[in-house]
Amino acid sequence: MQLKTYCLVFMIIVLEAFFISLILRPGIIESRILFTDEKKPTTPVDSHLKLKPLNKLKFLSPYGGDWTFGRNACSCRILNSDMFTYDKFNAGKDNLAIKKRRGLQYEQYKKRNESPAKKVIIAQPHSPLSYPTHGVEVKPLYSILIPGLAVHGMEGEKNTVKLTATQGVFNTIVETPDGVVHGSGEQELTIRSPSLAIINNILKHVTYTSKKYQIASTDLVSFQFEEYTAEFVILIRVPPMIRLFDPGPDNSIDSLVTIVTKTFIRYHKLRILISSIRKFYPKIMIIIADDSKVTEKIEGPYIQQYTMPFAKGWFAGRNLAISQVTTKYLLWVDEDFEFTQETKLEKLVEVLEKTNLDLVGAPVSQDVFAFKLWYEEGDDEGDCVFSQNGSFHPLDGFPGCVVTSIVVNFFLAKTEKVWSVGFDPRFARIAHTEFFIDGIGSLLVGYCTNVKVGHQKKGEKDKALNEVENKYAAFRRLDRNEFRSRLDMTYFKNRLKCYTRNRV
Amino acid sequence: MQLKTYCLVFMIIVLEAFFISLILRPGIIESRILFTDEKKPTTPVDSHLKLKPLNKLKFLSPYGGDWTFGRNACSCRILNSDMFTYDKFNAGKDNLAIKKRRGLQYEQYKKRNESPAKKVIIAQPHSPLSYPTHGVEVKPLYSILIPGLAVHGMEGEKNTVKLTATQGVFNTIVETPDGVVHGSGEQELTIRSPSLAIINNILKHVTYTSKKYQIASTDLVSFQFEEYTAEFVILIRVPPMIRLFDPGPDNSIDSLVTIVTKTFIRYHKLRILISSIRKFYPKIMIIIADDSKVTEKIEGPYIQQYTMPFAKGWFAGRNLAISQVTTKYLLWVDEDFEFTQETKLEKLVEVLEKTNLDLVGAPVSQDVFAFKLWYEEGDDEGDCVFSQNGSFHPLDGFPGCVVTSIVVNFFLAKTEKVWSVGFDPRFARIAHTEFFIDGIGSLLVGYCTNVKVGHQKKGEKDKALNEVENKYAAFRRLDRNEFRSRLDMTYFKNRLKCYTRNRV
Repeated sequence: MQLKTYCLVFMIIVLEAFFISLILRPGIIESRILFTDEKKPTTPVDSHLKLKPLNKLKFLSPYGGDWTFGRNACSCRILNSDMFTYDKFNAGKDNLAIKKRRGLQYEQYKKRNESPAKKVIIAQPHSPLSYPTHGVEVKPLYSILIPGLAVHGMEGEKNTVKLTATQGVFNTIVETPDGVVHGSGEQELTIRSPSLAIINNILKHVTYTSKKYQIASTDLVSFQFEEYTAEFVILIRVPPMIRLFDPGPDNSIDSLVTIVTKTFIRYHKLRILISSIRKFYPKIMIIIADDSKVTEKIEGPYIQQYTMPFAKGWFAGRNLAISQVTTKYLLWVDEDFEFTQETKLEKLVEVLEKTNLDLVGAPVSQDVFAFKLWYEEGDDEGDCVFSQNGSFHPLDGFPGCVVTSIVVNFFLAKTEKVWSVGFDPRFARIAHTEFFIDGIGSLLVGYCTNVKVGHQKKGEKDKALNEVENKYAAFRRLDRNEFRSRLDMTYFKNRLKCYTRNRV
Repeated sequence: MQLKTYCLVFMIIVLEAFFISLILRPGIIESRILFTDEKKPTTPVDSHLKLKPLNKLKFLSPYGGDWTFGRNACSCRILNSDMFTYDKFNAGKDNLAIKKRRGLQYEQYKKRNESPAKKVIIAQPHSPLSYPTHGVEVKPLYSILIPGLAVHGMEGEKNTVKLTATQGVFNTIVETPDGVVHGSGEQELTIRSPSLAIINNILKHVTYTSKKYQIASTDLVSFQFEEYTAEFVILIRVPPMIRLFDPGPDNSIDSLVTIVTKTFIRYHKLRILISSIRKFYPKIMIIIADDSKVTEKIEGPYIQQYTMPFAKGWFAGRNLAISQVTTKYLLWVDEDFEFTQETKLEKLVEVLEKTNLDLVGAPVSQDVFAFKLWYEEGDDEGDCVFSQNGSFHPLDGFPGCVVTSIVVNFFLAKTEKVWSVGFDPRFARIAHTEFFIDGIGSLLVGYCTNVKVGHQKKGEKDKALNEVENKYAAFRRLDRNEFRSRLDMTYFKNRLKCYTRNRV
């Protein structure tokens, strides 16, 4: 009899223990098996994989070069040693003082222009936290509700959630029971409650207030529950003011486009240009920057002439001319161009109206001219710019047009975009690519071959005019010093260590 | 005897069942109880919390207004009805055609200027996926290794992982066994293997290549394993070209600062200004934009005078002057200012060298002048700008200096930043705030009171000079039409529905 009772009691105890182990609390139990790195499955799996050889990874480089896993600083290699010339800046080697000054300016620049926190954040698996990973933005000094915060998990006796920030403070917009929320109005908010439901309800009503007026910045917020932490970024940003241009009731070319040019003593060529423009566009505004020694007044309606100090310079004149434009687009022309039947500005306007391009160039006479620019980060010696013939790819929706980086001096462009890049007035005699290099990261450039402008022939029969042309050519001749100073300027200003380009 | 055996057998069965339920597979078992919204804990918890009343949430508005949870469009309210005047644009009401054109320009603007995808992404809890949530950036047409992708979880018989994108394609840089990877070089990459270890090793070696040349864009990548999906953003961006200025070996004021001004017929005042500058800064460059009818040549070293079409205008002249600056900073002065002992430009340079400010103003004579601008998104009628006396907060490290939005016409500024905003040449007679409105989102503005410039007195004893002053004043008098056209311009150009400001 005793054994029977013993067995029965034992059965009951064991059965109860069994069920208790299954149902520890009200709710559903789900068993999970977690693999950690230290505990490998008992069946051995060979997961070792070989890296592809470098020569099979060239397709990952946009110009078929070596792909360096994004890690290495750019090097001043020649892309194709048969075809490319190589210009390297020597300012650094010749003058350590210049290099040191450049370094200081660069440190200052980096501090002000750091892209919103470059930190790479990885979302961890098997976390009970939900939180926003993208799209949280607030204006400086304003407040927002933080979306998506919650703890999905095991409720303990004391649940504590903590939020921390550095550029702003937290608050709650709901009335909370005493002792639950600490740190309202501060950079660290703590929420404590035995009830996860209450904590989650509060988390739905937490605000972030940015406390410093900045144009563009980020805050890194830390969201913590027990041993789990998640990080996310809040963008603090003043939206850039909108700038629109009124095309006018008739959407005419005259309301949309201003022609800009610079002249230096070659008035005869300038007058031919203007004459040719008027054949097709009698009312379009023409703005002329003039740094000739003796000014000849250019008369006529819709013409604005500006005089500059003598020989002030090429890019100074270009910057002056664009600064006076009041229309949505500007058309750059050199003073020795000539409009023809093929110079249909409407086609260029259509490209800029219907695509994301900021600037679209077209051929001058027979010259087809388009180059790509590749810009890569370097090291203490500087960064690299590589230029390559041709285009990146066709322009969607516009056969005959491509996306590129550098075009010739006949282009239509969004006025404001050109202002934001500018023609650096320090380039006095010759410069061209420098504008497009300055435009890297700002201007989206295209090139279309269905529009053309003519180029007035060099050499004049008239003796006096020929003298003018010779005078002009003398000013344009770039001596060795000017060439060096142009490179030195780019070395410092754009913090480059080399500019590699096609042999022209 | 039979019962004893029965008990024993039963005990053994129950014990085995108990242990099997604990240890289903090799590894560690962790029991978790998941709460879902539908299954509430059996102990009832009142998690309902009351929203604080709106009048207790005013602290969330940067100007103590109603906080609208970031949802409502701005309204043209008067911030404080006793103190503020109210300008509302009527162009929309008077002219539906203008409003329609503005709408079309705005649609176009939005398409080109959309901030990297505004989508709010929430990381889901209890996911076996790890993935990057921030910091993944690639240059257009370049390739990067995607960091942090892995599946941490239960291995099934057929594990399938899928990656999808829209602006680029995926590849792997490791040799993979046949049939495991599909879609290399395409927008959808699939990885299938019975071994999660192999899948995870491949995921460590997946590249993303951007396929379209764009200045700034985003791709939304979807990462999927069984029923789990995670989304993350890849930023596609050409880094903006660096622009540095060489301060020269001696870091002198002359190498750092150019003085810019505009003159219109008041040459007597201009000469007094220049004289006063030369007392303290004998070699600083002075650039003069001149739209007088009859030009008087201003002679002297380090002076550059530019002539414009007669009465071309105030902001046109300002834009011209700044376009010619070759130094890191420019100092704006009006032609009737006067330098004094207190006009220490070195102090203003120090502020811009050591803080994030782009522009710092200072008082003219006794006038202290600083206004904040608040910019809020509206609706189809447009957006809102509110201006308020005073400053946002002090400038860190500079007692006597504050952060604000609008200052008077005596300021030192970073040349390039001013270029990128520009003085809109469409404002011919009177404009001031318009520059700072255009600068919203671009310029970080400050104001310091430890530097001053003098203001030449109005009214001349000399009869001829007095006539000049009267002529000048006549041009400056803003008639009703001009005032209306200035508002209409801002209505269209900045897409505003109102500009509310202090009563001066």
